[in-house]
Amino acid sequence: MKATIVTIGNELLAGRTVDTNFTFLARALGAAGVRVHRHVTVGDERGAILATVRGALRDSELVLLSGGLGPTSDDVTRDVMAELAGRPLVLDPEVAARIAARMTSLGRTLTAVGNRQALLPAGMAQLRNPIGLAPGLWHEVGGAVVCALPGVPRELMAMTSEVLVPRLRAFRSDLAPLPVVTLRTIGVPESDIAERIETDGIDLYGVTLAYLPGPGGVDLRITGTEPHAAAAVERVAATIAGRLADAIYTRGEEPMEEVVGRLLAARGQKLALAESCTGGLVGYRITRVAGSSAYFAGGIVAYADEAKRDLLGVSPALLAAHGAVSAETAAAMAEGVRARLGTDLGLAVTGIAGPGGGSVEKPVGLVFVAAAGPAPAAIVTRRHLLLGDRQQVRERAATHALDLARRALLNLTDPIIA
Amino acid sequence: MKATIVTIGNELLAGRTVDTNFTFLARALGAAGVRVHRHVTVGDERGAILATVRGALRDSELVLLSGGLGPTSDDVTRDVMAELAGRPLVLDPEVAARIAARMTSLGRTLTAVGNRQALLPAGMAQLRNPIGLAPGLWHEVGGAVVCALPGVPRELMAMTSEVLVPRLRAFRSDLAPLPVVTLRTIGVPESDIAERIETDGIDLYGVTLAYLPGPGGVDLRITGTEPHAAAAVERVAATIAGRLADAIYTRGEEPMEEVVGRLLAARGQKLALAESCTGGLVGYRITRVAGSSAYFAGGIVAYADEAKRDLLGVSPALLAAHGAVSAETAAAMAEGVRARLGTDLGLAVTGIAGPGGGSVEKPVGLVFVAAAGPAPAAIVTRRHLLLGDRQQVRERAATHALDLARRALLNLTDPIIA
Repeated sequence: MKATIVTIGNELLAGRTVDTNFTFLARALGAAGVRVHRHVTVGDERGAILATVRGALRDSELVLLSGGLGPTSDDVTRDVMAELAGRPLVLDPEVAARIAARMTSLGRTLTAVGNRQALLPAGMAQLRNPIGLAPGLWHEVGGAVVCALPGVPRELMAMTSEVLVPRLRAFRSDLAPLPVVTLRTIGVPESDIAERIETDGIDLYGVTLAYLPGPGGVDLRITGTEPHAAAAVERVAATIAGRLADAIYTRGEEPMEEVVGRLLAARGQKLALAESCTGGLVGYRITRVAGSSAYFAGGIVAYADEAKRDLLGVSPALLAAHGAVSAETAAAMAEGVRARLGTDLGLAVTGIAGPGGGSVEKPVGLVFVAAAGPAPAAIVTRRHLLLGDRQQVRERAATHALDLARRALLNLTDPIIA
Repeated sequence: MKATIVTIGNELLAGRTVDTNFTFLARALGAAGVRVHRHVTVGDERGAILATVRGALRDSELVLLSGGLGPTSDDVTRDVMAELAGRPLVLDPEVAARIAARMTSLGRTLTAVGNRQALLPAGMAQLRNPIGLAPGLWHEVGGAVVCALPGVPRELMAMTSEVLVPRLRAFRSDLAPLPVVTLRTIGVPESDIAERIETDGIDLYGVTLAYLPGPGGVDLRITGTEPHAAAAVERVAATIAGRLADAIYTRGEEPMEEVVGRLLAARGQKLALAESCTGGLVGYRITRVAGSSAYFAGGIVAYADEAKRDLLGVSPALLAAHGAVSAETAAAMAEGVRARLGTDLGLAVTGIAGPGGGSVEKPVGLVFVAAAGPAPAAIVTRRHLLLGDRQQVRERAATHALDLARRALLNLTDPIIA
């Protein structure tokens, strides 16, 4: 089933709003076995939306619209659907009653504007909105389907997962997801990964292998070209896993902070952080995970040298001898924060994010990470030279710090060097 | 000048890669006075790209392609441009020489694959690549222009600013940016902003006013509908600024962390942070700004109550009496971190980000922020009830914490309450 996704909104088109609805829909439809072959963004203009839908119907079996179902005058998707179907807009009494009830519960008066959401194309099938007022719309035309979904991300997500995807499966019984396995790697450059996988030859059994480099490392996506290729996908994944070993930190989409959190929770251990160049990013990522308070005690952002000394107990002599960006300082920061917060594991990161502050000996992108614990006195450090601008260096440094925690928890670390 | 932007790549279409190139191009072209009226994403397929360009030429004066100029077999934009112009691909000796020189300097041998980037449509105008090897392409057809730009973001950005925009200005002498002023507000809901602006009536002098709510507050964008409306835009901006007063934290695109950094730097003052529910996000944002070490000493992420007690000196009695999420604890955290790091200003945030941990008295979204200083003993706190999921509550809490720092530095805070 080939699909075109149409996202609607002047703010999207101006580049002011990031189009997270498209990203969500592309992934959700892809997982359901729909092949998204085009994405179009247009402004809140009836004529432009209508022309886009008509054009897409020439080579798409599904056209999915997102946005323009709200109550204001620039919400024109209902008008587009009515025109497409050649039906008038009429007041839907059930939807109108829901809107009226909500207004009453908020102590407000129902206005003509509020009621616009109840004006729907006569007799058109609706998609239930699990969490909002306005339903989605489903219109079949010549074997294809045009669907209108709300633009509010929470409503779009709930409607897609709970209502749209099941309905598409009922509509097209041949719809089946392609088997896919993602292996996420960290710490090995893309070209080295390709060499490790391909040097001895690899039989792909007809599946496709994609290398996807990102700030968190290189993801490998293995996809079957037809729904019954699951065994072939698994065979290829097993071969690759054997060749890359512990460079793979997870199978699936789990981010590194969830992997680390899961390992800490399983062991009943606690983590403390000491950050310099990342400024708090490692802590922010660890606490993205709901329930992280079970294993995360806290952290110290020691940006200035005085903070490294006063808050983490890094000795001025050590700082003077090796500098703030050094394996020795990273190790002292990790042990300092572990001792001060009384946790099993202490994790530290210090580096030069740029654009200023680099030198020949210590260039921009030089980062040291250190893990102290879980066993007492076991401290490991790693040196990285990271590419990219200030934000990229910081993001990569945070991922490498978290990876060192993963390695320490799995006893994958190198011999003790500090 | 109406434009269609076409971004190319299977990974974009799969929702795996966020399309930052589009966002950049939409803003850069908009600022130059080009009206982007459509954005299309297609996969790495010659036929799909060609059909998209031909379709866009029906109603666009500029069609901008991004991506597909690399050296591998799935880079097909050169072929598309050649077919569009009815010209063969021929080896460009200058580009080939640049590639050969680069390969030599890297100690590598030039391969047929590497040389593909020098195969260009015969006689087609090029756009200089200021930082990469492959040039962009410029093809005029029937009064319109089709341009191909690289997909590597750094190269795309440099080529757009330094080469493409000047060339478009020369091509279309009527191209002039529309005057625009953005006023960024914080702390006042969208409906209250509208009421404050519109209750007494406002003469818009023919300019447009857009309300853009986001996690950092509501941005107001005032745009002239023709290039000579700058005076009208300024008049409207001045009226709105008068009615919203200190709810406006900046004019322009400057994020809140830059505003706070600028105020600290101008006063020669230093900041320390105490974070709970944000887990390090405030520190991460403050240190996004290059040079922030001039005014940021460091922070303490006190996630667990023990960390609030041991690292920030919040008394167990106070925690027991008021709880970790309270104005009293926020104030003690701010003063604690200020004293420990010896800074002029201490800033604290504590709250319930959810999804768990809420109660009737203290629901999910309840957040307290506190600022201690710059004058000794002056502590102010604010209570917020924030909407959204865990990440949104955390983002909004961080912005409100930074806003409290701005208010403290500008002496805009309410009377001392703790």
